[in-house]
Amino acid sequence: MRDAFHEDLDKISDQLVEMTHLAGSAMARATTALLDADINLAESVIEADKHLDDLREELDAMSVDLLARQQPVATDLRMVVTAMRMSADLERMGDLARHVAKVARLRFPESAVPADIRATILQMGQVAERIVAKAGQVIASKDVEAAKTLERDDDAMDDLHRQLFGKLVDGTWQHGTEAAVDITLVGRYYERFADHAVSVAHRVVYLVTGEWDLEARDHEEDEDSRPPA
Amino acid sequence: MRDAFHEDLDKISDQLVEMTHLAGSAMARATTALLDADINLAESVIEADKHLDDLREELDAMSVDLLARQQPVATDLRMVVTAMRMSADLERMGDLARHVAKVARLRFPESAVPADIRATILQMGQVAERIVAKAGQVIASKDVEAAKTLERDDDAMDDLHRQLFGKLVDGTWQHGTEAAVDITLVGRYYERFADHAVSVAHRVVYLVTGEWDLEARDHEEDEDSRPPA
Repeated sequence: MRDAFHEDLDKISDQLVEMTHLAGSAMARATTALLDADINLAESVIEADKHLDDLREELDAMSVDLLARQQPVATDLRMVVTAMRMSADLERMGDLARHVAKVARLRFPESAVPADIRATILQMGQVAERIVAKAGQVIASKDVEAAKTLERDDDAMDDLHRQLFGKLVDGTWQHGTEAAVDITLVGRYYERFADHAVSVAHRVVYLVTGEWDLEARDHEEDEDSRPPA
Repeated sequence: MRDAFHEDLDKISDQLVEMTHLAGSAMARATTALLDADINLAESVIEADKHLDDLREELDAMSVDLLARQQPVATDLRMVVTAMRMSADLERMGDLARHVAKVARLRFPESAVPADIRATILQMGQVAERIVAKAGQVIASKDVEAAKTLERDDDAMDDLHRQLFGKLVDGTWQHGTEAAVDITLVGRYYERFADHAVSVAHRVVYLVTGEWDLEARDHEEDEDSRPPA
């Protein structure tokens, strides 16, 4: 039998996994809403984000309460602090899904995504779903090797992001400035979503090994992923 | 005389204020680098961000150490947890300044900012400097009334952001897609910078009053600040 403290920690871990499910579902539905110009789906994603915000607040309250009541040290303390950081990542991932849904809503009844980049956006959505699902498994399993595989998904996301920017700036863009603005932001939302998933996985690695991968401090490629003019 | 715990808390607070200075200086220099296409200044901002990352890491280590050694409860516990959240905001603000500097570097020797939107970007830079300076004062003074004035600066930033998007999407944009991509991202970086400053101020309010302003949970206007097509 586990003691009360570790039961509480398990509860926190379960809640983090639940947050990965919600963030993944939100991004999957946001991608569909964006590609299909589905206003109802977009609205449902925007609405559902509140639930993720609430979960984060609940989880952080549980964590602070746990710190106050149990006064953990060493690994136990690190687990609680790390859980609070992961909940911040996951809540932000929900925000990013909501942002994608808002772009879909803003352009309704048209699709914000020109036909020739649909395939790229679709793939970005798929990578986003995959990487957050893996982040959930890593939280549940504490599997350091599995955590490392998220890097590859993130590399795939960076490649797609680079492709997307390539299409925006290679001089062949025919869809006007407004569509360019939409696609620039949408591309950034997907990329940041993946960054936060990697950050979650790195935090698990830190928890298990005590070693903080320096790259995890700022796992963002952003502008550098744009090909120079 | 203050006890050891409160001396440590003071040290953490001082370090947070120092982080606001660094983030403010970084964004001020990034704005100049962007407007003047000053590659050396851009490089110095990109380089200096590491210092802010280090400070955050140091501060978080101090905080965890403080939790382990002193096992604070109630307000003291809340202060330490809040400090860790503020350090995350401030580190992110440094990242955003670095992103602006990277856009300047990417377009060098040209300026990424077309002449007709220079004034808007300049103002966004000024609001960014002002809001982070105020965040620093709020951390130092714990002044709840001062914290509330950051909302007005953030509203000013949102207005400027809306103006910027207006120029991108009103059909008169003459500077090509690449410049539109740059300006879309730069606009978002300034806006997010201000959001994080407001978030810091809200956290101080929470610390002092125990009341978490619901709006503080997600203080982001983003896509909604774009005028509909």
